[in-house]
Amino acid sequence: MKSDSVAMVDLPSNTYKQETVCIFGTGDFGHSLGLRLLQSGYNVVYGSRDPKNSKFLPKGSKIMTHAEAAYEAQVIFVAVQRDHYGFLSSLASDLDGKVLVDISNNMRSGMYTESNAEYMSTLVPAATVVKAFNTISAWSLQSGGLDANRQVLVCGDRADAKQLVVDIAQALGFAALDKGSIKAASELEDLPLQLFPLWRLPLRIAIGLTAFIFFYVLIRDVIYEGVTNGKDISFRIMISLANKAFPIVALVMLALCYLPGALAGLLQIYNGTKYRRFPDWLDRWMLCRKQLGLLALAFAFLHVIYTLVIPIRYYVTYRRNVYVISLVKDNVTYEFDKIAAWRYDSYFSMGILGFGLFVLLGITSFPSVSNSLNWREFRFVQSKLGYITLLLCTLHTFLYGWDKFLRPSKFKWCMPPAYMLSLVVPCVVLILKLILIAPCVDNKVTRIRQGWERQSKTSQNTSTPLMA
Amino acid sequence: MKSDSVAMVDLPSNTYKQETVCIFGTGDFGHSLGLRLLQSGYNVVYGSRDPKNSKFLPKGSKIMTHAEAAYEAQVIFVAVQRDHYGFLSSLASDLDGKVLVDISNNMRSGMYTESNAEYMSTLVPAATVVKAFNTISAWSLQSGGLDANRQVLVCGDRADAKQLVVDIAQALGFAALDKGSIKAASELEDLPLQLFPLWRLPLRIAIGLTAFIFFYVLIRDVIYEGVTNGKDISFRIMISLANKAFPIVALVMLALCYLPGALAGLLQIYNGTKYRRFPDWLDRWMLCRKQLGLLALAFAFLHVIYTLVIPIRYYVTYRRNVYVISLVKDNVTYEFDKIAAWRYDSYFSMGILGFGLFVLLGITSFPSVSNSLNWREFRFVQSKLGYITLLLCTLHTFLYGWDKFLRPSKFKWCMPPAYMLSLVVPCVVLILKLILIAPCVDNKVTRIRQGWERQSKTSQNTSTPLMA
Amino acid sequence: MKSDSVAMVDLPSNTYKQETVCIFGTGDFGHSLGLRLLQSGYNVVYGSRDPKNSKFLPKGSKIMTHAEAAYEAQVIFVAVQRDHYGFLSSLASDLDGKVLVDISNNMRSGMYTESNAEYMSTLVPAATVVKAFNTISAWSLQSGGLDANRQVLVCGDRADAKQLVVDIAQALGFAALDKGSIKAASELEDLPLQLFPLWRLPLRIAIGLTAFIFFYVLIRDVIYEGVTNGKDISFRIMISLANKAFPIVALVMLALCYLPGALAGLLQIYNGTKYRRFPDWLDRWMLCRKQLGLLALAFAFLHVIYTLVIPIRYYVTYRRNVYVISLVKDNVTYEFDKIAAWRYDSYFSMGILGFGLFVLLGITSFPSVSNSLNWREFRFVQSKLGYITLLLCTLHTFLYGWDKFLRPSKFKWCMPPAYMLSLVVPCVVLILKLILIAPCVDNKVTRIRQGWERQSKTSQNTSTPLMA
Repeated sequence: MKSDSVAMVDLPSNTYKQETVCIFGTGDFGHSLGLRLLQSGYNVVYGSRDPKNSKFLPKGSKIMTHAEAAYEAQVIFVAVQRDHYGFLSSLASDLDGKVLVDISNNMRSGMYTESNAEYMSTLVPAATVVKAFNTISAWSLQSGGLDANRQVLVCGDRADAKQLVVDIAQALGFAALDKGSIKAASELEDLPLQLFPLWRLPLRIAIGLTAFIFFYVLIRDVIYEGVTNGKDISFRIMISLANKAFPIVALVMLALCYLPGALAGLLQIYNGTKYRRFPDWLDRWMLCRKQLGLLALAFAFLHVIYTLVIPIRYYVTYRRNVYVISLVKDNVTYEFDKIAAWRYDSYFSMGILGFGLFVLLGITSFPSVSNSLNWREFRFVQSKLGYITLLLCTLHTFLYGWDKFLRPSKFKWCMPPAYMLSLVVPCVVLILKLILIAPCVDNKVTRIRQGWERQSKTSQNTSTPLMA
Repeated sequence: MKSDSVAMVDLPSNTYKQETVCIFGTGDFGHSLGLRLLQSGYNVVYGSRDPKNSKFLPKGSKIMTHAEAAYEAQVIFVAVQRDHYGFLSSLASDLDGKVLVDISNNMRSGMYTESNAEYMSTLVPAATVVKAFNTISAWSLQSGGLDANRQVLVCGDRADAKQLVVDIAQALGFAALDKGSIKAASELEDLPLQLFPLWRLPLRIAIGLTAFIFFYVLIRDVIYEGVTNGKDISFRIMISLANKAFPIVALVMLALCYLPGALAGLLQIYNGTKYRRFPDWLDRWMLCRKQLGLLALAFAFLHVIYTLVIPIRYYVTYRRNVYVISLVKDNVTYEFDKIAAWRYDSYFSMGILGFGLFVLLGITSFPSVSNSLNWREFRFVQSKLGYITLLLCTLHTFLYGWDKFLRPSKFKWCMPPAYMLSLVVPCVVLILKLILIAPCVDNKVTRIRQGWERQSKTSQNTSTPLMA
Repeated sequence: MKSDSVAMVDLPSNTYKQETVCIFGTGDFGHSLGLRLLQSGYNVVYGSRDPKNSKFLPKGSKIMTHAEAAYEAQVIFVAVQRDHYGFLSSLASDLDGKVLVDISNNMRSGMYTESNAEYMSTLVPAATVVKAFNTISAWSLQSGGLDANRQVLVCGDRADAKQLVVDIAQALGFAALDKGSIKAASELEDLPLQLFPLWRLPLRIAIGLTAFIFFYVLIRDVIYEGVTNGKDISFRIMISLANKAFPIVALVMLALCYLPGALAGLLQIYNGTKYRRFPDWLDRWMLCRKQLGLLALAFAFLHVIYTLVIPIRYYVTYRRNVYVISLVKDNVTYEFDKIAAWRYDSYFSMGILGFGLFVLLGITSFPSVSNSLNWREFRFVQSKLGYITLLLCTLHTFLYGWDKFLRPSKFKWCMPPAYMLSLVVPCVVLILKLILIAPCVDNKVTRIRQGWERQSKTSQNTSTPLMA
């Protein structure tokens, strides 16, 4: 009754091959890598200058001289710094035909003209050098590859050598991605040195805008008051001025986050196709929309707390007490203004609801949340809810301003109140969106996004590079 | 000294096979898929109606006619829309024995009676159609499959054909999940069209409850005041009424989130087994508990900000000033009420601590956080801390109400204050929980959940369908 | 023209092997596991005491007696509780040479002297027992392994048996990690019983500190007032005292989170190497820094809401009204204090900005966010921004205190105001950091962290165990 297929797999433990991997270098990375390889069922041999005197190594690994260790394995991880690569040239004959894995990184970009991997290749021309694992930290090797970045980027000139390294990466629980020939090594070596590349432009915009608005309100409020009335109200800088700059920056950046999408839509209608490449500045702008939005949320968050802290401020308490005392002394009748009640409450309500939706947008941009949404859900949240957020925040600002724009006294030194400046970009975006969702325009955009092209003669003749 | 195992693996680069994959269609998805396949070491050939005049394609790929391209590969991805499937039937002989991968989606659900994959199958009966990759966007293909949903769902009638597609998906860094025969294709095609299916019921409950409570307080507060005293206090709608509705909805929904678990426990005791299927409504209710809880948190968040904004409202400032002026004018002594101080402070404290715990619950329901918890930790947070949150929020509401329920003046038009309505469900849940954690009951539930069954004659005779 | 490679892969469906896996036990886990195996293309047979009378099983699986089922497969999952392992010894001959997978967990740690897997091994010595899947819940099996913990830990004495189980785990979409011999089983069985092991120490510190500060301010404020002036201000406990304890705990814990890093730096300079092991207490402290920081953030969050709720408190409103009335009655001139306006506004501003950065730190410690950062970015946020946060929060506290430390009336019963206590640890940390970033010291630390060692004779002679 015993089936063949079962008899076949009779656990032949003697033929169960355990591959051997060699590691040159017993530092942090060498140590962690060895431990992980052992856990995944590999044999590990360390190569060292001084095998007798070596530091504590993972249990189960062996240590020998570089040459001896190289004999034992096909794949050799070189876990030493570039400065010490010299010893490899003396081992040239031992490394003949081996796969050397360069895992090194530099302290800063542009230290050397050629990448570490290419340099290693010139030292041992008879070996095949593969660049890999340099974006993985010793820490993420130890933590099992689940708590940290799981992507191993691999590049090298020989596909078979790369495959051996990819197999090891996968056995260790990482996802491997082939990045092409060894020429990509310098790019891979720059990756771990990057510091928020996508955040740079949005951060510069945020800092520039904040500085501009801050000085604008400083001149319009504090300096004007000092010059005209001789009063020093510089204490208002810490909270009142900050709380004028933050919401303006938040609103403008939220609008800037939706402006490129609207411009792209217009451009597609104008071009009559989606296959024409966008201008570079628009491409770069669209790539950092998420970062723009999150920075805007950070400013909105600060605005909320700065606003909520108002009633406990010394200055506000003082002014309120003085007002009540004056009411009592002057014995005036204190009328309730229903319009004001409606206006202030609506103003707060719009702001709170807008902020609530904004927080929701922020939450859905968490990688783990956005991964659990399908494309339609993601678009619904980021586009539909995003525009509603922008609309609520713009209404909030209009209600804040109310009729100020009609009162000439508000235009000090011909400078309009700062909130007016903040309304320009959001209004442009909302008007563009309104045009784009008008039925006739919307149909056209939808058809274009599905691949439809306007077959005009002019477009046939243009030699503009196209993007598929 | 050279070991055999090393000699064996001598990097035979000539035998390193690079599989060829064919893609019909050069649109966005075809482009991104080709790029990704090339990065993962595949050869890519595009099939096109008009190979001469084709758009910019990924470097390293080839383009030829459909028939030529089909010759080159075993697996053919069809990246064109269903409307253009017609050309496939003319290629029937070229596609004989091939694996066609249908990656298409429709614009909306129910557009066609048969799924796109089944339709393709009828066009080219000699080929094997596999449905796959339709839940993956061009975007997530480009971003390396780590930043976006990594699950490729596969279905088809032949296991070997599916295996070829699964292998490609895995080589591209995706996780593949077999969903059965080609009949599952229509289900897979509906997946990307879904819009928050699990959120629908909770959202409806939230909207329904909010509307009900809002009109209740509108009638009880604003309209009653208008009818009885002729006073127009409609300006209270924007904040005061909203801030009555939001906390009530939050509390009721938090309670609704824990009610099904308590009911399920009672039902298991009543049935004497955990192997009896729950009624459908209870099953559906239990599946959307997380969504109920998160919506409740959103309402609680709005309630917190609406409350914190109170002291800067025009109406509140006005009323406070009028009160102080009246105190001064009437020259009454203004007594400090220690009970009120205790009561208000406790009321705020309970609310803040409850909200703090509620935020903690929300944070642990993030996919990336809940994944890092083991089962016992998850249960501790979601069950124990959840009930403490509910208890704190219920106490917060009781302290808010204080002795209002004793004062007949509060029952306007026989309508009790709205907060009283909100206490019904939480109290029921807390009492049920109190019963379930009583030692004798708790033991029984624990035994039942471990698989124990009451061996009564009646249960033996029932023919209720059981669930293992 | 047809290439060889294509002809080769002619979909030989008859050789497409579908492996059969056996499951003993038809409970929740057995059910979910069978369903998942079927979805991934395995044949599944259940073994049961009473195959005729078995519960509803996944469609496509077969059910037979234990012995019959064991014949069908090489790998047998034993999904029954340890108490029922007895039946396995009667099947000894049927299980000869098979791989038994023990997936069991216990109700609590230390119930048995030997692990379940080792116990199973003694019952069926002729089979090979592999411990695996015990950290995976039935729920995460059902949800496709993407929404829940995806790591299957495996241990066992035979590498070939483990490999079979690892293959199944990977086919099911899990990542497998080999944890060594069967002796590791008891450790694996304890894992799902753990309750936040890394949070224990930080939680104890938080609770201890909160209790200490609370009683300190209780004595200094409430009891002192009661004894000295005979006034009962115990109503201040709920909010005023809580809001003194929370920020102090938050600040001290934030500082405690950065203290071990600074100490480690000093120790490395003192030792002249990074290869000397840190004392155990420092190691344990460094491992729970993230938890310390997140608890500090929770306390800071409570502090923020407790502060924002101040102006709606009964007591605060009362005091303010009394103050205004007294101003009116006494007819004093009420002077505006510019220094106070600056001081309070700066105090709030520092606190808000500090809290904003603190929230940012908290967000980047989400697994899904920290995974998307490279090492340099993570260090930038957690170290640079972390110290700026600590600096802002410390300044916030100094501005809160202002000149209180100069006024003897503030030292009640020789007890300094509580805020002073909270400044000790942050100041120590900031001073240590200032020393460590001084150029000369910084260079040394950087060199040491790159592996440089001071080659003194004394260090050569020490026999301290070294860590690589």
